[in-house]
Amino acid sequence: MELLNGKELREKKIEELKSKVERLNELVGLAVIQVGSDEASNVYIGQKEKLATRLGYYFIHKKFDESITDEELKEEIDKLNNNEQIDGIIVQMPLPKHIDSVKAVNEISEYKDVDGLGFINAGKLMHGEEALVSCTPKGIIDLLDNYGIEIEGKHVVIVGRSILVGKPLACLFTTRNATVTLCHSRTIDLAKYTREADILVAAVGKKHFITEEMVKEGAVVIDVGINREDKKLYGDVDFDNVSKKASYITPVPGGVGPMTVYELMDNTYEAHVLRRKLK
Amino acid sequence: MELLNGKELREKKIEELKSKVERLNELVGLAVIQVGSDEASNVYIGQKEKLATRLGYYFIHKKFDESITDEELKEEIDKLNNNEQIDGIIVQMPLPKHIDSVKAVNEISEYKDVDGLGFINAGKLMHGEEALVSCTPKGIIDLLDNYGIEIEGKHVVIVGRSILVGKPLACLFTTRNATVTLCHSRTIDLAKYTREADILVAAVGKKHFITEEMVKEGAVVIDVGINREDKKLYGDVDFDNVSKKASYITPVPGGVGPMTVYELMDNTYEAHVLRRKLK
Repeated sequence: MELLNGKELREKKIEELKSKVERLNELVGLAVIQVGSDEASNVYIGQKEKLATRLGYYFIHKKFDESITDEELKEEIDKLNNNEQIDGIIVQMPLPKHIDSVKAVNEISEYKDVDGLGFINAGKLMHGEEALVSCTPKGIIDLLDNYGIEIEGKHVVIVGRSILVGKPLACLFTTRNATVTLCHSRTIDLAKYTREADILVAAVGKKHFITEEMVKEGAVVIDVGINREDKKLYGDVDFDNVSKKASYITPVPGGVGPMTVYELMDNTYEAHVLRRKLK
Repeated sequence: MELLNGKELREKKIEELKSKVERLNELVGLAVIQVGSDEASNVYIGQKEKLATRLGYYFIHKKFDESITDEELKEEIDKLNNNEQIDGIIVQMPLPKHIDSVKAVNEISEYKDVDGLGFINAGKLMHGEEALVSCTPKGIIDLLDNYGIEIEGKHVVIVGRSILVGKPLACLFTTRNATVTLCHSRTIDLAKYTREADILVAAVGKKHFITEEMVKEGAVVIDVGINREDKKLYGDVDFDNVSKKASYITPVPGGVGPMTVYELMDNTYEAHVLRRKLK
């Protein structure tokens, strides 16, 4: 069994990205919009700011009061859409309930939608066209590629059909010529599917949901879960037992998680380059 | 074994749609853009015109010479986007090679994109939001629903990952709580997957590609193939032998095919209603 070490890969990738960024003539610009003051959001935005700063990005954090209206938020997003110094815009989730978050995300220009959550980037991804792809799926593919794990022809079973992970990841794997099965909370006899997986992805949000019996000998196991319990982090996979059967497995923490913020920076760099190409 | 009779269902559905259309205050408008004079395109457009006329739609067929440029085509699409009498616009494929067909399709307003081929409608479909869904996948779901075939919890195996059929159909089935496996030309040991299917969809484009040994006893078999040979039509499924094992099966012709043009008309009606709601 070999660990898929996201923390290590992330460092390597950051250094590579940094040297690409240094060769640019202009600063790469990233804007994060926050509404309200959610505790977890503060932490996540802090991580983004820290990495953006390390890479020498121009970073804006726009924080608005919960009382902001849909219309005012749209105006703020429009300003950033039209701001030439900004290459990437993200709206930090969750938004207060009175804000239409789908609408907000779709106000972001398709060329600055570095979370890949707008309809246009999702549609491009489905069509197999070049797109800004959401960060966690992109990080998973990067992890596999970096460890030389073949994707083509493999049976990939994904548990969880969220728009952040499961669905875009299914598209990415299909484009890479894997055969993909997308399972979810309404799948009957889940183990029947997971036991067939050459590559198994767990994105469920339940501590140790994937047990040893559900995994094929020699499978590659990717754990997207981040479940907090008594200030400790647990994955969706029962790591201690599943790791005995897996050929490769991501730890939690230190597997998929570290890749995600890196991919946001990579998307912002790509958006920077692409927008200048299109001019 | 019971036949899934698309020809019969289509008639029933057309009559239902006709009575809904008659209750509207305005005409439903559909525009078909053709570039050049492809033989098959002429036939398909003729079928669309015939059904549109039967339903009392306002129908425009805009035919352009092969020499039209990307820019001129964009202008023509824009005119139709701004034409209040037009609810649905389709660009008949194939387009001449010098025209960027992806770009052309994406010039169509998302609210008039009744083939559901633009990025925005594909993205909405992936997000599980209300969208204009491409016609063949929609027709398949209608067929299953009409025969009372349960989708939730079923294992659906789709062979073929095209943007017209396989990929949008995978989204629709996932939204309906099926567990979906998407296979394609690069799938290794295809029969291993197809034999597991409760509902098997063949969208390959090869005559009698799906044989008896590849199908589970009692499976529901949907044949999207239309393969011409010596002026006869053949499906992707070896009907004579597979029908012995299937619980339900679509014939070719007379199964999925007839539903497709109907669904285009249904999408145009829906686009008409939706656009008035949004005003």
